[in-house]
Amino acid sequence: MDVLRNGGSAVEAVEKAIIELENSPLTNAGYGSNLSWEGTVECDASIMNGQTLHFGACGAVSNVWNPIILAKNLCMKQCDSLSLGRVPPCILTGHGARLWAERMGIEIVDDRKMISTRAFRNYKHCKRKLKRYSLQNDIKFSPLDTVGAICVDSNGVVASGASSGGVSLKHEGRVGQAASYGSGVWAFMSRDGSKPSIAACTSGCGEHLIRTQLARNTAESLLDSSPVLGLDKCLKEKFLESPYLWDVPERLGGTLGLRFDPQTGDGEMLWGHTTRTMCIGYMSAENDKPKCVISYLPTTMEPGQKAVVSGRPFSVPIQPCPVITWQVMQADKQYCNGNI
Amino acid sequence: MDVLRNGGSAVEAVEKAIIELENSPLTNAGYGSNLSWEGTVECDASIMNGQTLHFGACGAVSNVWNPIILAKNLCMKQCDSLSLGRVPPCILTGHGARLWAERMGIEIVDDRKMISTRAFRNYKHCKRKLKRYSLQNDIKFSPLDTVGAICVDSNGVVASGASSGGVSLKHEGRVGQAASYGSGVWAFMSRDGSKPSIAACTSGCGEHLIRTQLARNTAESLLDSSPVLGLDKCLKEKFLESPYLWDVPERLGGTLGLRFDPQTGDGEMLWGHTTRTMCIGYMSAENDKPKCVISYLPTTMEPGQKAVVSGRPFSVPIQPCPVITWQVMQADKQYCNGNI
Repeated sequence: MDVLRNGGSAVEAVEKAIIELENSPLTNAGYGSNLSWEGTVECDASIMNGQTLHFGACGAVSNVWNPIILAKNLCMKQCDSLSLGRVPPCILTGHGARLWAERMGIEIVDDRKMISTRAFRNYKHCKRKLKRYSLQNDIKFSPLDTVGAICVDSNGVVASGASSGGVSLKHEGRVGQAASYGSGVWAFMSRDGSKPSIAACTSGCGEHLIRTQLARNTAESLLDSSPVLGLDKCLKEKFLESPYLWDVPERLGGTLGLRFDPQTGDGEMLWGHTTRTMCIGYMSAENDKPKCVISYLPTTMEPGQKAVVSGRPFSVPIQPCPVITWQVMQADKQYCNGNI
Repeated sequence: MDVLRNGGSAVEAVEKAIIELENSPLTNAGYGSNLSWEGTVECDASIMNGQTLHFGACGAVSNVWNPIILAKNLCMKQCDSLSLGRVPPCILTGHGARLWAERMGIEIVDDRKMISTRAFRNYKHCKRKLKRYSLQNDIKFSPLDTVGAICVDSNGVVASGASSGGVSLKHEGRVGQAASYGSGVWAFMSRDGSKPSIAACTSGCGEHLIRTQLARNTAESLLDSSPVLGLDKCLKEKFLESPYLWDVPERLGGTLGLRFDPQTGDGEMLWGHTTRTMCIGYMSAENDKPKCVISYLPTTMEPGQKAVVSGRPFSVPIQPCPVITWQVMQADKQYCNGNI
């Protein structure tokens, strides 16, 4: 909110919201990320600017304290033209991503500084479990998940960002949804303002979100005349019943969406998930404090088989357009019972 | 063809076709790839299996002689279930990808062995040019481009693969379309055979193919009642006029598609490009030798502004289903005047 109240853009607000979440040891993003098989931290992050439609992402990057800053810089640099007609990269991974960050003056830290006590304890715990139940598939671990943020600023510009430490014990170099186009984040505005602006960010099992391109699909579903019904239909048809997940017994994911009509000033923030729970925090310029929702799948429903969808409408006067933001965190998904 | 005649699958045939292309010093894939800014070889490759709908990709990987073998192994391993409910990675990048390849027994070579004389000469030439015309954007270089292959096998299974050394002087760690879901390759079969099977692979500027998810879009356009018209419309609306490329003056790309009706045995191989030229090689089990087409944009059309689309129908008796393949190479696109 501080960014927006000071005239900052949606992209900057999303970046700053995610920096807070990355810096928290409670989330699986930046500091406190799940550790890889080798016990290292490798992060994915991405940002999409709904106005320029530019996307920037970093994957499997170590030593960068705030991966979202790197993703945002890559997104901003999409406007540059390089000599010899070269095109700025939109996705950088691994050591090269770290070098690029270093050159941009983004904070680089020793790998061990990224490891929180909780993440290390979890790592040891998982490794022990793996030895003990090496063939058992139904053990819960890594309770907290990735983070995302979506926002509409005072100019009506939408943006979306996501950051993730990836799954526990992942293979070095693995890239998940938070660094894949269309999977972790989506933001779109029609150039003539004739369609509502949309944005979405997702969380869940990276490989399944990639296969279903869930961020793009859920964002586009909000263009439906009823966004709630659109999102519900999308989660059913393009996630729970997706042909791309035919071999996945439990389809666990969550999405957070935003629809804003620049002509009327009406908007809606929506969320939907197939996991047991999903946490959402949000705030507008008219609020003094952020609000929080913990959304539960009804106990009669089986996680991974059904979706729950809800939302909050909002409306803002258009002239002069006030600052409004919806900052969102996705954590504590508890979806890890079987697929992560 | 040897793979298919010996009862191999579409995925294996695509893999073997691309191995041939990677091993050739004439293509920008595997050996002979364009060099990065630092003078190293970093490859992207991916495979999608239309039957399982699994996707495997490696990005920015060095030292792996045939990146397509690594991508194929990642694709095949999607079927595995790991202990503790972990999911096999579908995208691996950089050093981690190389380690995974090593463990799978895939050939690892010294980085210098991947550098062809031609690629090294081109690198030196570009670096010199860059010094001389550091602000000039219209110099052609890196004439040869990435490779792709699509195939339908005797069981009617479709598959698609792509391999690329990326753009000349690219930043270390950059990942292009050949390692991004929906951008470089696509293959899809409906589980009940009610829809035609489709496959596509693309070539062009990676960042633009990612933004437009050209492989998925062009493949899906072939479901149109007229695949030629469908592809033409797709290249126009979803590439040349794409809102995601609003800031790109020249939209240079090419796609190669396949549509096969498992119920009638009728199929069509199609290609379309906005570049000056595109090379296609193809062969069916009924042919003794492969055929080749060099497709040109009419001289009255400006590259990057208009598309040309063409194709070849084929028909095969269904019972017993004979072996048929279409192996395709995309090279010599000469699209580098401005965007790469």
